[in-house]
Amino acid sequence: MAGGPKLIEDGDEALLYVNEKKSWLVRIERGKKFHTHKGLIDLEELIGKQYGTEAKTTLGATLKVIPSDYLDHLERIMRRTQVIYPKDTALITMLANVRPGSRVVECGTGSGALTSYLATHVAPSGMVYTYEVRGEFQANARKNLEKLNLMKHVEMKLKDITNGIDETEVDAVVLDMATPWMAIEKVKEALRMGGRVVSFSPTINQVEKTVEGLNTAGFVNVKALELIMRTYKVKYNETRPDMVMVGHTGYIVSARRC
Amino acid sequence: MAGGPKLIEDGDEALLYVNEKKSWLVRIERGKKFHTHKGLIDLEELIGKQYGTEAKTTLGATLKVIPSDYLDHLERIMRRTQVIYPKDTALITMLANVRPGSRVVECGTGSGALTSYLATHVAPSGMVYTYEVRGEFQANARKNLEKLNLMKHVEMKLKDITNGIDETEVDAVVLDMATPWMAIEKVKEALRMGGRVVSFSPTINQVEKTVEGLNTAGFVNVKALELIMRTYKVKYNETRPDMVMVGHTGYIVSARRC
Amino acid sequence: MAGGPKLIEDGDEALLYVNEKKSWLVRIERGKKFHTHKGLIDLEELIGKQYGTEAKTTLGATLKVIPSDYLDHLERIMRRTQVIYPKDTALITMLANVRPGSRVVECGTGSGALTSYLATHVAPSGMVYTYEVRGEFQANARKNLEKLNLMKHVEMKLKDITNGIDETEVDAVVLDMATPWMAIEKVKEALRMGGRVVSFSPTINQVEKTVEGLNTAGFVNVKALELIMRTYKVKYNETRPDMVMVGHTGYIVSARRC
Amino acid sequence: MAGGPKLIEDGDEALLYVNEKKSWLVRIERGKKFHTHKGLIDLEELIGKQYGTEAKTTLGATLKVIPSDYLDHLERIMRRTQVIYPKDTALITMLANVRPGSRVVECGTGSGALTSYLATHVAPSGMVYTYEVRGEFQANARKNLEKLNLMKHVEMKLKDITNGIDETEVDAVVLDMATPWMAIEKVKEALRMGGRVVSFSPTINQVEKTVEGLNTAGFVNVKALELIMRTYKVKYNETRPDMVMVGHTGYIVSARRC
Repeated sequence: MAGGPKLIEDGDEALLYVNEKKSWLVRIERGKKFHTHKGLIDLEELIGKQYGTEAKTTLGATLKVIPSDYLDHLERIMRRTQVIYPKDTALITMLANVRPGSRVVECGTGSGALTSYLATHVAPSGMVYTYEVRGEFQANARKNLEKLNLMKHVEMKLKDITNGIDETEVDAVVLDMATPWMAIEKVKEALRMGGRVVSFSPTINQVEKTVEGLNTAGFVNVKALELIMRTYKVKYNETRPDMVMVGHTGYIVSARRC
Repeated sequence: MAGGPKLIEDGDEALLYVNEKKSWLVRIERGKKFHTHKGLIDLEELIGKQYGTEAKTTLGATLKVIPSDYLDHLERIMRRTQVIYPKDTALITMLANVRPGSRVVECGTGSGALTSYLATHVAPSGMVYTYEVRGEFQANARKNLEKLNLMKHVEMKLKDITNGIDETEVDAVVLDMATPWMAIEKVKEALRMGGRVVSFSPTINQVEKTVEGLNTAGFVNVKALELIMRTYKVKYNETRPDMVMVGHTGYIVSARRC
Repeated sequence: MAGGPKLIEDGDEALLYVNEKKSWLVRIERGKKFHTHKGLIDLEELIGKQYGTEAKTTLGATLKVIPSDYLDHLERIMRRTQVIYPKDTALITMLANVRPGSRVVECGTGSGALTSYLATHVAPSGMVYTYEVRGEFQANARKNLEKLNLMKHVEMKLKDITNGIDETEVDAVVLDMATPWMAIEKVKEALRMGGRVVSFSPTINQVEKTVEGLNTAGFVNVKALELIMRTYKVKYNETRPDMVMVGHTGYIVSARRC
Repeated sequence: MAGGPKLIEDGDEALLYVNEKKSWLVRIERGKKFHTHKGLIDLEELIGKQYGTEAKTTLGATLKVIPSDYLDHLERIMRRTQVIYPKDTALITMLANVRPGSRVVECGTGSGALTSYLATHVAPSGMVYTYEVRGEFQANARKNLEKLNLMKHVEMKLKDITNGIDETEVDAVVLDMATPWMAIEKVKEALRMGGRVVSFSPTINQVEKTVEGLNTAGFVNVKALELIMRTYKVKYNETRPDMVMVGHTGYIVSARRC
């Protein structure tokens, strides 16, 4: 917004980009070097240059230096844990009608990737209450969320929601747990009238039980779907879908309290 | 949040819900009746009752009264115009890294459906600059956005972005236009370093030209994909994908300025 | 093969073709007229003309006259009954390793469409033994198979295969029935060592039970899959998948006796 | 068919089956041993035993001995060359209306896998005329077809069909070549009235040119499609599509001469 192109500063986090498959998130600091399989980069030398510049490694490879953003982090967290994919995260957030000011319950916290996306979109005045039963998962998620500076929109709980949800009149509940159907009564108590519940499950048997449970509990607008993402190799006169693809991530069930 | 269940008030907008296929958004007002093909509903009689109540039409049909929300409106706008679907809207917003405070350029405005989703997620301090060349589309979109109370995060422009984008150093550009490749140079000038561009197109030929244009202009991380949504008929012991399905909406191309 | 183009003869069956969506199979006979919603065609006038000729209706519409073939009939039978689609029929036949000389058991006969494809490919020396419990289905299938001149490779049985299969040492069993898992023991008795069984079912629950049953019975190479057919609107510079598509027909399970 | 279970004989070809991912086609011979990564199998010891028997390797691993069939060979040829998949082969053969007695032109021969499937289904009186321009491909295909005992239904030609097709009045032409649109005029000359042409291509650009060419040449019923095969992991209460899948093999274009 301000005058002139953005310069690389000491302390910045930057993306060192080789190609679509290879890039690193790096903290730029004086006196620091970064090791790649294609040689070393002297990070101090980058300070004061414009973003977008090309850096050369000691072995002559070239990388572009790009300002990092939230999506870089999200993709990295998701790649490590491989549970919920970006495409599903985006649609779950929409189907739960998550908006600035929303109060959302999530279970479980897992890596905190979905938590971070929900937290981003309830800002500035909303809150994500995220439940997890495994302490080490919570600790790891907390680290991820702190790094993303999102903890102010998140309240973490080490509890099993099938024993009860502390919050009431929440706008949405998002479930990524092995047995979502066992939580439905508690979800119903926590949700406000008209509030949304969205559940993500890898197997069709989980979907069957969840849908049945939601119908029995009087939820309306119960829907089940899956998103299949097809990537393309686009090249002039040689365009086709990629040969290898992720065939399945999971199913999404959504419903509304009535 | 406060004590007791929410009551239906004069002036509320509510969803009258029959089933997954049939529901209406209605303003509750004294002295007003609502006509359905299954008879009349006296809206005044609903005032003071709890949300979730069942209303009976003069012909004996039953409807549930549910508080309306943003998603109800979004789905209705999208159904009318049938261009960008919710699944694509959600992923486009994620791939553009749209967050609270983001400054986003959109072209074209169309029905304002995607604009509204972007505006929701740049709140409270960000802004969506949305370009459109057809006055009647802009007027209709303005009406939709005003109804959703989102105009404070939107600036509408009656301009062709291939002639230039007024803003600079924006975080993201979202394109839903017939010839996105003709706008790439202007998009590049408007984007900040590391900023994201996401384009939506129905045909594979548009994708080919857009990807080629982005590569030529030095964008990095150029990707092309599509989302296929498969809905399910879930019933105990009879679960299967729906027989009729939307086979195609459009392709998404994303890239990053470098 | 012989000299000169083929001429339309009295008694021929021909395809009257308007476009991809509209065509009819018609027997050409002296003194006969054919009624379409676009006017009458005098079939006698076609006799002696070359195939490929254009015929005009009394209302001025144009149709092409093309020699009919087996596939025209198969598509018509399948369209009427809407159970097994061509794509599935072709793969089932391959996965059952149906070849000239194969002895194949089928259950149930249904419309005879799949029977006809199997019969075609066991000719000249093989045989399809097809079981059906509903007499009216068998009668209809017989009519279809006689019209296709395929009854010499088919033996029809009005029996429930869960009570036993008359044949032994057959090369393949093809199942299109509501409860395939209830037939597995009888299928095993009928199949030769190394023979193939292929089952088609619309719901995932049927697949689960069938796969479990096959595993329990010691079948090997048990696989479950589905074929999704995506059709395209291909037009220069406007190519894309069709918007409306058949999202699901059924699942195919295949295995091998051991 | 005859009395008693089938016995393993000297000279038989058998399938040694470990699991769905691991099996070998082996010729059983006196004095021969077969090496696997799990130890040796003495093939002579199998002679005289029943098919279905379990054999033990010197390292204690267990394999089942199953009679081999055509599909075992087809899958192996296809796996080696990885061009046309079984699902596409089966549908191409159906869409070309290939039947006993059909005269079919194929271009190119490639590995002979598709040739073998076509040859199987034109038997006993039909013929596949298969064109190839690369001598080493033809030689390899001949070897494959001889092993399958199918050469009596195949005539191999070392020619480029864009220079002309020797046959006329053929029932079908099947194209698996880089530039199918360049062959359309010759295909039209070779096909009988009402005959079918089916073309397989990996890229959408090839599809565009082929469809345009067929329309221009007056073919009718021009269709473009693709088959997507989704495999499933079926297990009681844990059923879901496989995570990794073949996202694309190729597009199929079919049409009819008029």
